[in-house]
Amino acid sequence: MTRQTRPFPHRHLLGATALEADDIGCILRRARHFDDDIAAGRAVPQTLAGKPVLGLFFEDSTRTRMSFEHAARLLGGAWYNLDIGRSAVKKGEGLMDTVHTMESMLAPAAMIIRHSEYAAPDYIAARVKCAVVNAGDSWREHPTQALLDAYTIEKHKGRVAGLRVAICGDIAHSRVAASNMAVLRALGAHINIIAPPVLMPEKLPADGITAYETMEEGLKDCDIVMMLRIQKERMQSGLIESDEAFFRQYGLTFDRLAHARPDALVMHPGPMNRGVEIAADIADDPKRSVILDQVRNGVYVRMAVLDLLAGGTKSGGTK
Amino acid sequence: MTRQTRPFPHRHLLGATALEADDIGCILRRARHFDDDIAAGRAVPQTLAGKPVLGLFFEDSTRTRMSFEHAARLLGGAWYNLDIGRSAVKKGEGLMDTVHTMESMLAPAAMIIRHSEYAAPDYIAARVKCAVVNAGDSWREHPTQALLDAYTIEKHKGRVAGLRVAICGDIAHSRVAASNMAVLRALGAHINIIAPPVLMPEKLPADGITAYETMEEGLKDCDIVMMLRIQKERMQSGLIESDEAFFRQYGLTFDRLAHARPDALVMHPGPMNRGVEIAADIADDPKRSVILDQVRNGVYVRMAVLDLLAGGTKSGGTK
Amino acid sequence: MTRQTRPFPHRHLLGATALEADDIGCILRRARHFDDDIAAGRAVPQTLAGKPVLGLFFEDSTRTRMSFEHAARLLGGAWYNLDIGRSAVKKGEGLMDTVHTMESMLAPAAMIIRHSEYAAPDYIAARVKCAVVNAGDSWREHPTQALLDAYTIEKHKGRVAGLRVAICGDIAHSRVAASNMAVLRALGAHINIIAPPVLMPEKLPADGITAYETMEEGLKDCDIVMMLRIQKERMQSGLIESDEAFFRQYGLTFDRLAHARPDALVMHPGPMNRGVEIAADIADDPKRSVILDQVRNGVYVRMAVLDLLAGGTKSGGTK
Repeated sequence: MTRQTRPFPHRHLLGATALEADDIGCILRRARHFDDDIAAGRAVPQTLAGKPVLGLFFEDSTRTRMSFEHAARLLGGAWYNLDIGRSAVKKGEGLMDTVHTMESMLAPAAMIIRHSEYAAPDYIAARVKCAVVNAGDSWREHPTQALLDAYTIEKHKGRVAGLRVAICGDIAHSRVAASNMAVLRALGAHINIIAPPVLMPEKLPADGITAYETMEEGLKDCDIVMMLRIQKERMQSGLIESDEAFFRQYGLTFDRLAHARPDALVMHPGPMNRGVEIAADIADDPKRSVILDQVRNGVYVRMAVLDLLAGGTKSGGTK
Repeated sequence: MTRQTRPFPHRHLLGATALEADDIGCILRRARHFDDDIAAGRAVPQTLAGKPVLGLFFEDSTRTRMSFEHAARLLGGAWYNLDIGRSAVKKGEGLMDTVHTMESMLAPAAMIIRHSEYAAPDYIAARVKCAVVNAGDSWREHPTQALLDAYTIEKHKGRVAGLRVAICGDIAHSRVAASNMAVLRALGAHINIIAPPVLMPEKLPADGITAYETMEEGLKDCDIVMMLRIQKERMQSGLIESDEAFFRQYGLTFDRLAHARPDALVMHPGPMNRGVEIAADIADDPKRSVILDQVRNGVYVRMAVLDLLAGGTKSGGTK
Repeated sequence: MTRQTRPFPHRHLLGATALEADDIGCILRRARHFDDDIAAGRAVPQTLAGKPVLGLFFEDSTRTRMSFEHAARLLGGAWYNLDIGRSAVKKGEGLMDTVHTMESMLAPAAMIIRHSEYAAPDYIAARVKCAVVNAGDSWREHPTQALLDAYTIEKHKGRVAGLRVAICGDIAHSRVAASNMAVLRALGAHINIIAPPVLMPEKLPADGITAYETMEEGLKDCDIVMMLRIQKERMQSGLIESDEAFFRQYGLTFDRLAHARPDALVMHPGPMNRGVEIAADIADDPKRSVILDQVRNGVYVRMAVLDLLAGGTKSGGTK
């Protein structure tokens, strides 16, 4: 059975903005196959069998790290994680000395990089032999989050093209928002971004994106409502007055959700601040919230990415 | 060969007080099979093959965690451990959001929960789809410790029923003591508890338990002497004057052990405070101390629990 | 095909000084087989299949720990690492109680010990049933580092005997230097050690070692230039004035390297302090630096050691 027709043309996954609709489609189709295999209890093809996959999380992210670890292990990969807090990095070793040491030691098939600095994964990718996957850098990109969000939308709504998606909250500082705008636009969605002026980006990254300052206006006719996590740092820096003040103006409640389409679905990348950006009863409503689905789909999408970049069936075709 | 006749009737292992003698017998028999298989060099049945097992240790316990990890891996399970210290839990995420996120991500066959709060494993068990094993909560229960203790007694003495077991030290604050009293009573042992008044529980949890304030009285005719770890917090809170004072009155020495039966065995759940609750020469006496046996048996008992709750042969019968 | 003729006579690898040339040869030949197998894409014999291997790193060393972990897993071993920072060791449990608990729990085929105290691995080895590998103790020994260095030299130069090797920097406090002097002398190399007087050992450990106080004299005619890491503690204790002062006198530059033989190779055990003991351009010169080769070879040498001490083919002969 033909699983894809066009081979995946990238050696790395560094950002969503570099992906064309065909690339995204390729990843989402592959994710769907893994999803179907696992749902049906079929054995997952061990396309990473015996291959080391290395997590390099310079910024902590237990959730994203475990999702990649699970994805790699489901494909037969041998997961290694550099415990940065204890490593030579702390002794003042330079970034590329750490990376090259681990590359020489493990000969990994892929490195999964989370870093607080802008484009650190790109910098590393240009200097190593293996595939590099960006697991989040600075405020710039978190491509696998955007891909799993697109997969979740497609799975529930059957398509992404033509839908209207609201992204709400701290747009300016969110790598999740940035990557989602790129993926959703590539797939043909309309995007409403909703934020107070201090959390709105200075310019919109693409056509087809409309900015709103109130939830009531921005949620109108939306099929998908994507909430972002409010970081405590925003409050400390004075950008946001308080949890309560933010919730009063921008928190997602059923009253506000009523402005969206009646079948609108609610998403959140986690971890949630209940009572800050989202009301607890919406988060827990199985008819509206697909938040835990997103978590599960993250595993399938990361399997797809690892398989395409580092699996034995790189060149595509039948499995 | 018939391995058990009555299927194990529980979905979770939340406490020892909920177990009947038949349940305990079922676990101990299963543990014995794994013990025998490994001793004879036979391959262990991979009844957790490919199934994720998740450790959620909200309270640190390297020893218990590694014992569960080893048990799960010996059965073919894929062990995952949430590094709580670094996880979103620290970012203020609620307990059940963390649990549901991990459940959605990994679809684990079982979760192993250690938590400082009373009945946290029960709270979680009521809200997830997978089996939950209590690996110690507050001062309430630590059922696998009590089961491995019972297994160790049975292995050395051939039975538990009719034996007299002394449990000595900080009874009031010990989940190990609480679970042991339940399991040993269910199996028909007589129990002497020995503690200074400040460390004695206000009321005894069951019939067949007698309280003593001196080691000399309480150890009389005992077949088993089970020592408990004295926590430093007891000293800080003023309940105990000092290590030395405690050892003078309640430390297990050969002189005191002479009050028990001549073939009495000494147990301790670890980690030991040598010179506080137990003299070093007793801890190291291979004729009296079965402390390291307890550690080894913990692996077999946890294999049994995981196999019964999450293994492929849940319904019992021949393997 | 005969892989070795004399069986490896040691139960443990505690130090390099105890190794004879034949022992070293045996380890290096075994390492070469693994190197060749992996380079040719052949399956590595799973001589540790199903056997637990336990890391006990009482001193942090992510790099050495991951190298042993990878070596063990490549041979099919089940890696376990005691997270010392969180373990009962912190609760005041004695060293041997921790070791015996882990030994009873896991029944490991080998323990890999890193400890800040002199001869701790020997102390442990005398008290456990399994093989013990010293992964660095105090300032005394780091035998696998010396073995991987010898392997790297042999691989690039075809032999060790008769070569002249300079070891430069903090000789007095370096377990790497101590183990290297033992291995290189056993294999018949000449050794120049180069250090300021405060970092020079009081007496030289063996014949065939000459001490120099300047790089210019000491590097003369050398085939190999082995740099050591300068520890920040040396500066705090006043033994070294500053990074800059050390680099001015003892840092390896191309000017200084010109005193060695034209084909001299540069080594460093890592992590490097660029601009302190070594200039960045030398570290990165693929014609002179074999520093990343050392990292890779460390995996093969540790596979060899684990295989010889704990593998299924202990008695040697054809595999």
